[in-house]
Amino acid sequence: MEKIILTGDRPTGRLHVGHYVGSLRRRVELQNSGEYDKIFIMIADAQALTDNADNPEKVRQNIIEVALDYLSCGLDPEKSTLFIQSQVPELTELSFFYMNLVTVSRLQRNPTVKSEIQMRNFEASIPVGFFTYPISQAADITAFKATTVPVGDDQLPMIEQCREIVHKFNSVYGDTLVMPKALIPENESCCRLPGTDGKAKMSKSLGNCIYLSDSEEEVQKKIMSMFTDPNHLKVSDPGEVEGNPVFIYLDAFCKDEHFERYLPDYKNLDELKAHYSRGGLGDVKVKRFLNSVIQEELAPIRARRKELEKQIPEIYEILRKGSIVAKEAAAETLAEVKAAMKINYFDDMELIQEQAERFRQL
Amino acid sequence: MEKIILTGDRPTGRLHVGHYVGSLRRRVELQNSGEYDKIFIMIADAQALTDNADNPEKVRQNIIEVALDYLSCGLDPEKSTLFIQSQVPELTELSFFYMNLVTVSRLQRNPTVKSEIQMRNFEASIPVGFFTYPISQAADITAFKATTVPVGDDQLPMIEQCREIVHKFNSVYGDTLVMPKALIPENESCCRLPGTDGKAKMSKSLGNCIYLSDSEEEVQKKIMSMFTDPNHLKVSDPGEVEGNPVFIYLDAFCKDEHFERYLPDYKNLDELKAHYSRGGLGDVKVKRFLNSVIQEELAPIRARRKELEKQIPEIYEILRKGSIVAKEAAAETLAEVKAAMKINYFDDMELIQEQAERFRQL
Repeated sequence: MEKIILTGDRPTGRLHVGHYVGSLRRRVELQNSGEYDKIFIMIADAQALTDNADNPEKVRQNIIEVALDYLSCGLDPEKSTLFIQSQVPELTELSFFYMNLVTVSRLQRNPTVKSEIQMRNFEASIPVGFFTYPISQAADITAFKATTVPVGDDQLPMIEQCREIVHKFNSVYGDTLVMPKALIPENESCCRLPGTDGKAKMSKSLGNCIYLSDSEEEVQKKIMSMFTDPNHLKVSDPGEVEGNPVFIYLDAFCKDEHFERYLPDYKNLDELKAHYSRGGLGDVKVKRFLNSVIQEELAPIRARRKELEKQIPEIYEILRKGSIVAKEAAAETLAEVKAAMKINYFDDMELIQEQAERFRQL
Repeated sequence: MEKIILTGDRPTGRLHVGHYVGSLRRRVELQNSGEYDKIFIMIADAQALTDNADNPEKVRQNIIEVALDYLSCGLDPEKSTLFIQSQVPELTELSFFYMNLVTVSRLQRNPTVKSEIQMRNFEASIPVGFFTYPISQAADITAFKATTVPVGDDQLPMIEQCREIVHKFNSVYGDTLVMPKALIPENESCCRLPGTDGKAKMSKSLGNCIYLSDSEEEVQKKIMSMFTDPNHLKVSDPGEVEGNPVFIYLDAFCKDEHFERYLPDYKNLDELKAHYSRGGLGDVKVKRFLNSVIQEELAPIRARRKELEKQIPEIYEILRKGSIVAKEAAAETLAEVKAAMKINYFDDMELIQEQAERFRQL
């Protein structure tokens, strides 16, 4: 069986280092590993509209930002199909049929949906489209016959819901859909970055994100003003490494080789952490090191983005072509789904003959 | 503005005299009135699947039954577009977008949905597709720019929900959708038939329906064993006319001219009712009269059906052609919806130029 990846992002803003560390960096590795037969990367505008229905312009403007971020990070349209969700209408048809296979109470129990509803302060007024997006996501996954869905463990309930739908569909209508599996990062701890202010999540509205497209100066400014251990007042004080954003970022970004280049007094991150813990190491020094490490990683991404920003029409063309490829793949699955459900009446000669015969015998 | 009708039925069984009196008879009159520019009659297979997902074969088999009933009753493919819902995928796309404009709690308050959930003993395990079908119905109505939706008053909350969606869409994205109106029968009382057993609703599972396709003998048998006034034991007893199914059916079917032909001792239904009320009129006599009246109405329908049953492939062809016409109409609306939402990115030269310019200025 082919190994196929489906993944993507909602285009509600530029991507930040949290996206990079949490999924994007790994996605490029998976792409370049050669282990996958097909990779579909979806810019999930339709999903973004489920909680941005009254601000479609935001979604519309951010599609190109996400595409630029993708390409800057090394997603390659020769290897991965980059496409826009709303340009594949087959996905809404699949969603529509899957909605008959899931109960309202099952959706209400979905932990991811529960916590996202809370996060958005929706409670009493959840848009139906948002409430049902796990079903739409199952359509996205199955449309491309994805075997592998790279997610963080907070998204596991979504994959579970999708697997239930696949199971239910196949048992009611016969074996049709491919059962997907979640692919969880091996080292989950290094894959979730807090905001620069120490809040658990990066969020545009909190202004605590470092964007992949930030200038060198912006990145430096954000890093130098990052939240650290609030009790680490004097350099001589012992500092807390656990839960300290600066060290969490270092966990995610720094390798031993960075010390040789930028901080040769230490061999590796363990040594740096030890010093910080016992006291005598100032935040500014650690932040400067973090800045060097992150700038090294972001510089080539930023440079590629600058080039790509001169080629906007070409990037829309990449998305347009990708959407055609995605549409063809989804249409194939949809045809199989309709054949399994036997609702392809006009192509169903057996049905027409069977009915004609039935009435002849009456 | 064009006057356009959208209406239809779920293909879960043959149509019965309840459908005929409640909607079908009037639909033919509206069709032949010449007052409407376009009439779309939808065989709602996708909606039927929302509570029959595990029995698609039932839906599949009954499409032709409903089509035969439609054509037998005088719906004319030259005047009305007969089509199958699932063959118009644009409807699922519209549903998908409208789902963002309705909250979960608003759906929960929909009285029609509430009572239908109760009727089906769904309660805790409502399929999401069933729960959301008012949104799907709004897609059906608006896709064809329907101005007029003929419904019984039990369906008024569905039209209200649709009107809310139209209002919301137009206020968020600009004037795009046509606001529909419900068309309620003038004489509601004569438009709802109880089962032959006196139960409020005709239902296949209760075996209390007279089908349009029943043979003369079947109809006669069902009428002669109809429930009447249970206290009308002897012919001489006074009988109750109110709530008596036989008289409700007469209200719906009989005209003064029928008395001349079949029961010349009475001038009209009022005289017959008066006699029954004061006593001295037996049920059998009334039932025989009802049988004559109904047989007169059903005989030409049955005869047409017999002819049509010999032309099954041609009827599928009518549905196929109608579905193409419907698809074109819905596609036009969908294009307008997408343009209003500005999610037609690749046709949106302004967007591409605007973005290219924006990045040039950075």
